[in-house]
Amino acid sequence: MDIRRIFGANVRRYRVAAGLSQEAVAVKMGVDRAYVSGMERGQQNVTLLTMWHLSEALGVRPADLLDEAVEEAET
Amino acid sequence: MDIRRIFGANVRRYRVAAGLSQEAVAVKMGVDRAYVSGMERGQQNVTLLTMWHLSEALGVRPADLLDEAVEEAET
Repeated sequence: MDIRRIFGANVRRYRVAAGLSQEAVAVKMGVDRAYVSGMERGQQNVTLLTMWHLSEALGVRPADLLDEAVEEAET
Repeated sequence: MDIRRIFGANVRRYRVAAGLSQEAVAVKMGVDRAYVSGMERGQQNVTLLTMWHLSEALGVRPADLLDEAVEEAET
């Protein structure tokens, strides 16, 4: 498994579930939309603090973003 | 909450539960013992890949390292 892809799949799943666009999440986090897109594609090796900001933006717990159950459904 | 402190408290909890010294975890991860010590004290803003290496060294799931239940017991 690649933890970056698991993380990215969770970000996408929770973002869509929250009815938020990548742009809306980017604005909440103070980053570019391309950065959000890159996270969702597993291309960002994000830090703890970024994970925390993201979990706040999505309204989930940080640990939810590392839930390994999602990858099977996504790949 | 500070996610770095939650992470650090979990690292310490799972390391002790596994009967591993900071030095032993450091060797498994290929880092210095001081780095492991810093993580446990919430002083490192680690990345996803470091979290993955650490979860492998401790024999836990990455998401376990962000479990928020531990902080109440530690602080």
